[in-house]
Amino acid sequence: MMAGDRGAGGDDVRVAVLASGRGSNFEALCRGDTGRGRVVLLVSDNPEAPVLKRALELGVESMYLSPGKYRTRFSESAEENWTGIMRDRGIQLVCLAGLMRIIKGPMISEYGGRIMNIHPSLLPSFPGLDAQEKALSYGVTISGCTVHYVDAGVDTGPIILQRSVPVLDDDDVRSLSDRILEQEHIAYPQAVKLHCDHRLSISGRRVLSGLKRGDVP
Amino acid sequence: MMAGDRGAGGDDVRVAVLASGRGSNFEALCRGDTGRGRVVLLVSDNPEAPVLKRALELGVESMYLSPGKYRTRFSESAEENWTGIMRDRGIQLVCLAGLMRIIKGPMISEYGGRIMNIHPSLLPSFPGLDAQEKALSYGVTISGCTVHYVDAGVDTGPIILQRSVPVLDDDDVRSLSDRILEQEHIAYPQAVKLHCDHRLSISGRRVLSGLKRGDVP
Repeated sequence: MMAGDRGAGGDDVRVAVLASGRGSNFEALCRGDTGRGRVVLLVSDNPEAPVLKRALELGVESMYLSPGKYRTRFSESAEENWTGIMRDRGIQLVCLAGLMRIIKGPMISEYGGRIMNIHPSLLPSFPGLDAQEKALSYGVTISGCTVHYVDAGVDTGPIILQRSVPVLDDDDVRSLSDRILEQEHIAYPQAVKLHCDHRLSISGRRVLSGLKRGDVP
Repeated sequence: MMAGDRGAGGDDVRVAVLASGRGSNFEALCRGDTGRGRVVLLVSDNPEAPVLKRALELGVESMYLSPGKYRTRFSESAEENWTGIMRDRGIQLVCLAGLMRIIKGPMISEYGGRIMNIHPSLLPSFPGLDAQEKALSYGVTISGCTVHYVDAGVDTGPIILQRSVPVLDDDDVRSLSDRILEQEHIAYPQAVKLHCDHRLSISGRRVLSGLKRGDVP
């Protein structure tokens, strides 16, 4: 399964990123410190996605794959196809990065507990679409981002880590989204590193990362 | 209405605190910088509440008033009585500080938009009882506290300010509650000061406190 294409990197963890849009989190995962994690594959459900061009520039294998006929989820056969492509390439960790589509069937069966997503709010507040707009309308003064494992629900899986940002009086969706995105670019590589370096353990639905009371001032 | 009992303090804002328990937030409101706000009354629905003793020590007028026959809310006549007592004393702002009882009728009519509560989570996550336990069980890595105006719902009113804390691997309800409580003691006086010094304005359900993009590094 291990491609061994990095010489001494035989114990690298092979990571695929699935994305629909710009791909700034894809780039953060390629450029950031992900420990033993190596992004070796980018798959998009959108043939026009700028992230495909970015993958070419970064020298990462990339492809558009059809998601099937639905708008917000995969057809069963398409999800099987995506999963098979990743299996063939020895992918060990799947990172969703702005994939505008719900995963339900074959991918969860094959990669359960090894699929991550990043969401632009402090979950469980504001799951689903337009999280930044919901946070602004609700009137929170702190928001942020959440990296979590994916389960069969929408943004309900166990949380790996969160980072917070202030919400300011004159914020609009654009400015708040940009401020959260900066934290996403820090949080996502951190979470991948913790996973790939086997630093995470699960207790109930809590993900423990080793940070204890004595470690914090 | 203004008692004028502080000499030059003729424009003080007279604050009542309603509490059922220990009263650490009551003490924080008495000792902290609340701007023009002055805590002049403490009312408890629990004749055994340690907060009553603390009020005596701090020289703040205090009383136990019956909440009526229900366990988690006021009887209509009791809520009228509490409201009348506050009206008679010229109370202009009501701060709930661990009041284990829902306010619905006469007090909202009389003091709507001038009742605050503090809640030990980053709302809208984990409203209601046992917020710290819910946060631990859910597995968030950031929690905190929220000061908000009270409306007819449970922990649903417009948010004035929030402060965050990390959740650590070895936290239990006690240690997380203590960490959040430290932030409550900072947040609550701040929120009262913003209100009493007329620094807050409402836009939709957002409470604006004057912090703008240029102010933040």
